[in-house]
Amino acid sequence: MNININADIGESYGKYTIGADAQLMKSIGSANVACGMHAGDPSIMVHTVRLALENQVSIGAHPGFNDIWGFGRRQIRMNPKDLEYLVTYQIGALQAIAGAQNARVTHVKPHGALNNMAHDLEDYAMAIGRGIKAVDRDLIYVANVGSQMSLAAERLGLRVANESYVDRRYDDNGKMLSRELDNAMITDPKEAVEHVLRILETGAIYSVSGKKIPCKVHTFCIHGDEPTAVPVAQSLRTALNQAGIQVLSLPELMR
Amino acid sequence: MNININADIGESYGKYTIGADAQLMKSIGSANVACGMHAGDPSIMVHTVRLALENQVSIGAHPGFNDIWGFGRRQIRMNPKDLEYLVTYQIGALQAIAGAQNARVTHVKPHGALNNMAHDLEDYAMAIGRGIKAVDRDLIYVANVGSQMSLAAERLGLRVANESYVDRRYDDNGKMLSRELDNAMITDPKEAVEHVLRILETGAIYSVSGKKIPCKVHTFCIHGDEPTAVPVAQSLRTALNQAGIQVLSLPELMR
Amino acid sequence: MNININADIGESYGKYTIGADAQLMKSIGSANVACGMHAGDPSIMVHTVRLALENQVSIGAHPGFNDIWGFGRRQIRMNPKDLEYLVTYQIGALQAIAGAQNARVTHVKPHGALNNMAHDLEDYAMAIGRGIKAVDRDLIYVANVGSQMSLAAERLGLRVANESYVDRRYDDNGKMLSRELDNAMITDPKEAVEHVLRILETGAIYSVSGKKIPCKVHTFCIHGDEPTAVPVAQSLRTALNQAGIQVLSLPELMR
Amino acid sequence: MNININADIGESYGKYTIGADAQLMKSIGSANVACGMHAGDPSIMVHTVRLALENQVSIGAHPGFNDIWGFGRRQIRMNPKDLEYLVTYQIGALQAIAGAQNARVTHVKPHGALNNMAHDLEDYAMAIGRGIKAVDRDLIYVANVGSQMSLAAERLGLRVANESYVDRRYDDNGKMLSRELDNAMITDPKEAVEHVLRILETGAIYSVSGKKIPCKVHTFCIHGDEPTAVPVAQSLRTALNQAGIQVLSLPELMR
Repeated sequence: MNININADIGESYGKYTIGADAQLMKSIGSANVACGMHAGDPSIMVHTVRLALENQVSIGAHPGFNDIWGFGRRQIRMNPKDLEYLVTYQIGALQAIAGAQNARVTHVKPHGALNNMAHDLEDYAMAIGRGIKAVDRDLIYVANVGSQMSLAAERLGLRVANESYVDRRYDDNGKMLSRELDNAMITDPKEAVEHVLRILETGAIYSVSGKKIPCKVHTFCIHGDEPTAVPVAQSLRTALNQAGIQVLSLPELMR
Repeated sequence: MNININADIGESYGKYTIGADAQLMKSIGSANVACGMHAGDPSIMVHTVRLALENQVSIGAHPGFNDIWGFGRRQIRMNPKDLEYLVTYQIGALQAIAGAQNARVTHVKPHGALNNMAHDLEDYAMAIGRGIKAVDRDLIYVANVGSQMSLAAERLGLRVANESYVDRRYDDNGKMLSRELDNAMITDPKEAVEHVLRILETGAIYSVSGKKIPCKVHTFCIHGDEPTAVPVAQSLRTALNQAGIQVLSLPELMR
Repeated sequence: MNININADIGESYGKYTIGADAQLMKSIGSANVACGMHAGDPSIMVHTVRLALENQVSIGAHPGFNDIWGFGRRQIRMNPKDLEYLVTYQIGALQAIAGAQNARVTHVKPHGALNNMAHDLEDYAMAIGRGIKAVDRDLIYVANVGSQMSLAAERLGLRVANESYVDRRYDDNGKMLSRELDNAMITDPKEAVEHVLRILETGAIYSVSGKKIPCKVHTFCIHGDEPTAVPVAQSLRTALNQAGIQVLSLPELMR
Repeated sequence: MNININADIGESYGKYTIGADAQLMKSIGSANVACGMHAGDPSIMVHTVRLALENQVSIGAHPGFNDIWGFGRRQIRMNPKDLEYLVTYQIGALQAIAGAQNARVTHVKPHGALNNMAHDLEDYAMAIGRGIKAVDRDLIYVANVGSQMSLAAERLGLRVANESYVDRRYDDNGKMLSRELDNAMITDPKEAVEHVLRILETGAIYSVSGKKIPCKVHTFCIHGDEPTAVPVAQSLRTALNQAGIQVLSLPELMR
């Protein structure tokens, strides 16, 4: 049994630095690289791609709303066609940056509020899928388990990696609790490890009320902007190795 | 004898519309497509690429400073490395957008103040060249005759298309007069045509003081934001055809 | 019987021009001046304030979401506290620009998607009201009839000008039809005039299904970005004058 | 003998945090508050104003180029009229934010590359001065000693506070060494204190080559983004107190 761990990386901007990228890179298998719309800029993208290469971490585009101030965390209603092209744009920008470093973009994961909205909204989920497919139909669409994104990927014939979170709790519909709720986050490394292993061993996620929701998870996300991200990631990686579970990159896992 | 005519296209932004793109496309051979930093956005890029395809006009990236407010016309001092990556980013974004329409990006022409600065500044000219080469070494670097950009292209082993302007006058150093000067622009279609034919026939440009500056010109630029752009472009195309000079796309011309 | 007509003005940005400001100014009583977040910039604000002074049109702040690309027309979910400060910021910026021209800001009208959301969302309507009150409690809050904004203004002790639209039709809840519906807009000047006079004479607005919704309207808005804005505004002004109804500025009307 | 210490404060943006504002506030007399163009946003401005009030630190506007990515540190050539209005805009925005907290804006200090350019460029220095004067002619223009800004303030009849730097070395023209030079910064607290006391005691600054340049300094700036900013500020404040020199706010000092 193998698994992928992914994290959002490269979300600094100009003189502004955020996240413990260099440390996180050591524990993950795949990096979701910000593409300049909600965070990231060309120079940071170059730096991030190099860091991924050094750590043998696979590279994905992490498209977000065009909203630097809101860090892509504000829900924005926009025309799905505009969204589709916004996604293609961001993937293309990262492809060129990565290509210049002899690296390849192999997956796409929507960021923040865009991810949240596309979880539920079919038109957003499809727009993202079309934006991906327009660039390269071999790209892996990373999609929350049970989301409209998973369905969209299937409908479009795209490869999909079902995603769950190392550090988030779920409601009875299999949806992550809002970060505004006190119990949304799992910050204790030990608890996070147990949470992940339970999902892997039982083939299901569990809501805060105890409901079992069967699902196949390919990749677990760690939120890089949590102060506990690095220790959680390290503990998880170690625990998985001890349990005989290998952390692979997404292309290796989905081969 | 053949020639290319290029123009800056797709410089609208969101709800803001600028330029007579649909009309200009009928007279030019190659379009310099804004890539979202000084103007243009993903949706406008899609629209512009389609328009180019309909008119059999070849597509180039038109990277500019990241300055929507200034429309890329403010000179900005920045680190050449940052500039290099900014150029790669913009080309990549357009490549993906174009690829989704089964079109290809075949040239790169810097925009506005970036073009002006790179005319004289070796580090800027080289940064742009490196940004181009990092993406695709077959891309044609469109460079003002006699500029540092021409030299940079040569040094980097890139193909270069020497550019002159349909609608601009020159000083004794072969540099365009600043638009702030009254006599900088040629707005009369008849005069513009004579100006171009003279350059082609004599293999030289002429300064306002009458100095002859020998040069080989591959492509003539029309400023799309001038109110006279469309009639000038039409007159020029007609006059060139009558003179037996074909207007080709850049890839055809540089083959 | 007197009335105010208002329009959104000064929504150009940098090199991008939008709207027939100079012509519209001749017909309206009050201008809602964009403040740099969804449109407008300091130089355009100066120009717009001068234009208002020349036409004896009163000046209001027209705060919008910080979203130039979306022109403030994308609905954005954000923290109401951040929204409150964003409104204060925009009013203050315009106050300084206006003050430098010996003009005063006398009303505030939210723009686009912010206006639409605040129609229904109490927290947005209150945040805007608090943002206004923090600057100057004599500012007039321009609020759609029957909106949460009217209620918020009342609750905060702010002066409120109830607003209806010259060029928009209503549903049975007294809410404007979405612009995406075919029958949302009234583009025929004659029909627009009849629409306004009927509201004034009967003290009510009427839904597309014929429902009468009593309301007191202080000000009618004209959408400056409609191609028919100028003729509609002119016809309306003439018709109102012929009917003995004076078009006043908001401070005159609310005195 | 009294003195002022100022620092750039409130330069975070959205989710991005920069600077040790809360700690620096304890040592300075006046804060230069970013106004949303190169850094800062309405919410951060509110937070910063409150922090200044708590620490009895006077509040100044810190206008910069409209360039969040560049953090206002890229030199930008723009029309001085546009610059003038850009300055007025930023001051007005801060005035409203401050007013809502019962605080007042009492000085203006240009940021980063704008400050550097206005040191030498008369038109920039005058544009800033006009932008200040248009809002409130009692505002104090904080200007590098020997700069065009000092001259502009004088010519416009504005109050001027001559500024020197706690942590920067000078060339023979009395201009700060570029930060790109190794010896530009003074990072040792002890050395910084000696540097300041020498300027105060001898009424002159000294270039790296030893040249004495007489000048009257009202205020010393500490760069808040240097890692050594907090210890340098604390050491300086203590040393000044021990030398019987009081650190006042700018309005107190300039009374």
